[in-house]
Amino acid sequence: MQQAVNIIKVGGNIIDNEEKLASFLKDFSELKGLKVLIHGGGKVATEISKGLGIEAKMVDGRRITDNETLKIVTMVYAGLINKNLVAKLQALSCNAIGLTGADANIIPAHKRPVKEIDYGFVGDVEEGKMDGKILSTLLQAELTPILAPLTHDQQGNMLNTNADTIASTVAVSLSKNFKVNLIYCFEKDGVLDGEDKVIPAISKTYFAELKEQGIVVAGMIPKLDNAFAAIDKGVSSVYIMHADGLKDLINNDRNSGTKIS
Amino acid sequence: MQQAVNIIKVGGNIIDNEEKLASFLKDFSELKGLKVLIHGGGKVATEISKGLGIEAKMVDGRRITDNETLKIVTMVYAGLINKNLVAKLQALSCNAIGLTGADANIIPAHKRPVKEIDYGFVGDVEEGKMDGKILSTLLQAELTPILAPLTHDQQGNMLNTNADTIASTVAVSLSKNFKVNLIYCFEKDGVLDGEDKVIPAISKTYFAELKEQGIVVAGMIPKLDNAFAAIDKGVSSVYIMHADGLKDLINNDRNSGTKIS
Repeated sequence: MQQAVNIIKVGGNIIDNEEKLASFLKDFSELKGLKVLIHGGGKVATEISKGLGIEAKMVDGRRITDNETLKIVTMVYAGLINKNLVAKLQALSCNAIGLTGADANIIPAHKRPVKEIDYGFVGDVEEGKMDGKILSTLLQAELTPILAPLTHDQQGNMLNTNADTIASTVAVSLSKNFKVNLIYCFEKDGVLDGEDKVIPAISKTYFAELKEQGIVVAGMIPKLDNAFAAIDKGVSSVYIMHADGLKDLINNDRNSGTKIS
Repeated sequence: MQQAVNIIKVGGNIIDNEEKLASFLKDFSELKGLKVLIHGGGKVATEISKGLGIEAKMVDGRRITDNETLKIVTMVYAGLINKNLVAKLQALSCNAIGLTGADANIIPAHKRPVKEIDYGFVGDVEEGKMDGKILSTLLQAELTPILAPLTHDQQGNMLNTNADTIASTVAVSLSKNFKVNLIYCFEKDGVLDGEDKVIPAISKTYFAELKEQGIVVAGMIPKLDNAFAAIDKGVSSVYIMHADGLKDLINNDRNSGTKIS
C-alpha cells in the first residue's frame, strides 16, 4: 500500500489572524503522517507596500506584479510569513522546512506570457515538469515542507504564483509515489448549497448539476474545476473545508467539509 | 577518502553590488564538488528600514534587533536576498536551495542572554547540538544549500545571527562526515602584513607573533580566532580571501589569499 501524504493549503485570512493562525498551526503540528503546507499571502504584503509608498498596480481590475511588488512579495511571502510559520511549527515540534518553488527548482514555472494583459512577474506552473523527487526526499527525511507562493523563471527572477495552483501541482506530482489528499482550508465550512449548508460530497455529475442550477458560482467554480483536474491526474481526494475541521478529518477520518472525488 | 565540501561565506558588500554579485555567483556556480553558501545581510535591510521609517536601535554603539528590526531582517535576509541568490544560481544551473537555520532546525540556537546589553532577537548558535545530518542529505541529493544569517529560538521566534559564526558552525558540523574547507570571501585579498601584502599562510605560532607585533589588529583578530577554533574542531583548512580568487582556489588549487591551518 502507498504511504499517504496530506497536502494542505491555508489561505491568507488565516495567516492574517494571529489567533486563528495559532490554532491552525497547533492542529497542523498534531496531524498524523506525512504532510506539506502551502500558504497564501495575506494582507501583510499590502501593508508593507503602503508603508514603503508603493501603490498596487492594477490593469483592468487585475493586480500586476511589477518589479517593486515582486520585491515586496518575495520579502513577505518567502521571508516574513514563511519563516515565521517555520519558527512557530518548530516550536510545536514539527520539523518544518520553508521553501519556495525556486528552491531546488521544486516547482518548474515560467513567466506568464503577455496576451491582453501583462501580469508582470507572475509564474505559470509547468505541472508536467514537476517530478516531486526533492519533496519525496524531504518527506522521507521526516521533514514537513512549508511552501510559499513563489516560483522562478529559470532566468534569475522570482515569480509571484497562485498558492492554490501550487497546492494542486504538488499534489499531482506526489501522487505518483504516494496516496495524496489535497485539502483546501479556508474561512467557510465547505462548498455550500442554496441554504448555506455544507455539501458533504461532490462528484463530477453532481458538480455539473450544481453549476446548472446556479448553486455553485463565481469564485468556487475554478476551485472545483482544479479539484476535479487533480483527481483526474491521480490525487485520491480533494477536500474544501474550514481549517477547524482539519485535525478531525486527518486523525479521525471525520469529514465536516466537502469531499470531491 | 572523505568527500570534500567547500563552505563559502560571502559578505554584504558583495551582495550589495550588482556587478560583483553577478561575477561571484558565476564563479560559485562553476565550482567543482559539493558546496554550501552562507550570505551576509548587506545594506538592503537598512534601506528598507528607512523606507518604513524604522530607526536602527543602538545601545552603547551596538546594534539591537528589536521586534521591528527582526521583521525587516527576516524579510530581507530570508526573503529578498536569499531567494534572489537562489533564482540567480538556478539560472546558472546550480541547484540551489535557500534556507535559514530555523528550517529543518538545521542550526540549533537560542536567544542571546541579557547581560550588560539586551541585544534583542539575536541568536547564539549551539554548535555542539548541530549534527549536520539534513545538510548532508541535501548535499547527497546534489543540492547546494544557501544559508541566510537567521536562526530561531525554539519558541516560535526567528533570531538575527552572525553569518561568520553560522559558516564556522556549519563547517565544524560537516567535518564529521566530509573533508571541509571553510572560505571567507570578502573585498580584501586576504590577511595583510605591515606592507599591505597578502600573508599566504598563517599557523597558530605565526598568528601569535603577528598579534604581538601589532600587524594583525581589530576586526581581523576574531575572524582568525574563529578560524583556528574551526581547525581545532576538525575543519581541514580555512581561507580568508578575495571573492575573485575563489574559482582558482577550488578548481585549480591555487591560493591567492590567506590559508589558515
